[in-house]
Amino acid sequence: MKIFDRPGFPNPARIRIVLAEKQIDSKVEFVPIDLIGAEHKSPAFLQKNPSGVLPVLELDDGTHISESTAITEYLDHLDGNPTLTGTTPRQRALIHMMQRRAEAELLDPVGDYFHYATPGLGPQLQAFKSLDWSGRDEWGRRQGERARAGMTYFNGVLERQPYVAGDAFSMADITVFVGLMFAGAAGITIPGDYAALVAWRTRVADLPSVKHRSGQAFLADDARRLGL
Amino acid sequence: MKIFDRPGFPNPARIRIVLAEKQIDSKVEFVPIDLIGAEHKSPAFLQKNPSGVLPVLELDDGTHISESTAITEYLDHLDGNPTLTGTTPRQRALIHMMQRRAEAELLDPVGDYFHYATPGLGPQLQAFKSLDWSGRDEWGRRQGERARAGMTYFNGVLERQPYVAGDAFSMADITVFVGLMFAGAAGITIPGDYAALVAWRTRVADLPSVKHRSGQAFLADDARRLGL
Repeated sequence: MKIFDRPGFPNPARIRIVLAEKQIDSKVEFVPIDLIGAEHKSPAFLQKNPSGVLPVLELDDGTHISESTAITEYLDHLDGNPTLTGTTPRQRALIHMMQRRAEAELLDPVGDYFHYATPGLGPQLQAFKSLDWSGRDEWGRRQGERARAGMTYFNGVLERQPYVAGDAFSMADITVFVGLMFAGAAGITIPGDYAALVAWRTRVADLPSVKHRSGQAFLADDARRLGL
Repeated sequence: MKIFDRPGFPNPARIRIVLAEKQIDSKVEFVPIDLIGAEHKSPAFLQKNPSGVLPVLELDDGTHISESTAITEYLDHLDGNPTLTGTTPRQRALIHMMQRRAEAELLDPVGDYFHYATPGLGPQLQAFKSLDWSGRDEWGRRQGERARAGMTYFNGVLERQPYVAGDAFSMADITVFVGLMFAGAAGITIPGDYAALVAWRTRVADLPSVKHRSGQAFLADDARRLGL
């Protein structure tokens, strides 16, 4: 298997944590994509993923899988022992529900805030997002507000249960964790009184799959380099 | 089980087709929600789904599942014989990838076009969407263009394979099908020369689960009533 990605960016980080959780990093060849140089918008890359985003998993038969949830489903079921996506119908449903909420209410709005309301990754990449309309800044700021509302929601969830989708760590925790790291890099901080969310983040940051592989600093380096 | 929904709307239609495919409609009590009267934004409903959208599945133990992908995962695995979400890791991955693309590249942009660039469901509901900024119309139109690009993409996919995620009908087909019906209701039509997409739509419309339950006319009635 190959993974086309770029370490330090949010969605690549999600899959690197999944690989570490499943202990299959060593079975994967990582192929770096020049994200800053817009390689992920090149015709060659768009053949692999027409949506033009990272990461992409290439199977040995040449099939390309994109979208983090889909890649996670594949990797989690490879050994016949899913640990991140649930086993019962009820677990599967709760994890997929929270995974979608983690994207729609946190990770995606943070990304839109970053790209629309800040300089993002610079002018070369912004050109691919057709951002030249009068409402862009306000729309970006609204997405920032939406991300803050997402933090409020997940703090409430974690006041009631130890992990995002219930009693066990799942792919939804990975998505919220990476969403918070991206938020921090983009300048959206967790309000100080969100004790449940902050305590949960500390526990997740201490997991071996997070601590030693993708690392708590995985976005900080890029944030510094990009001047965020 | 209970389903809180409103017949005739896109995401409720997705789940009604799933229920018909799994032949478990009769095991479900349908509870109508007054969508036009904004009941889905009321405190009582937000307890069931804080995202304030339909449909919601209530399990017999009181658990609420929202998000169509999550509800589909639950219903498809109830009998231990998944037919809409794949069985092998590769199938699961391809179906989840295409499900996500069907939402992100077609159904969601159509919904945003409908709510931002047309009168949508009227002023009472628009108030919940904070649409009063100068860029809203242009943003809505851009989502309409994005939906058209999604049609181009799926037409290309269906030139190469019989169903959206490969050789078999899956939840991703349901999402594209409902996305096209919503697009039609919102005034975004399929270009006439998209033969593969149109032929596939005819085949899906003839499936018993689509034809006799949710019906090809499931959005047309609402479209007429809303003056679209």
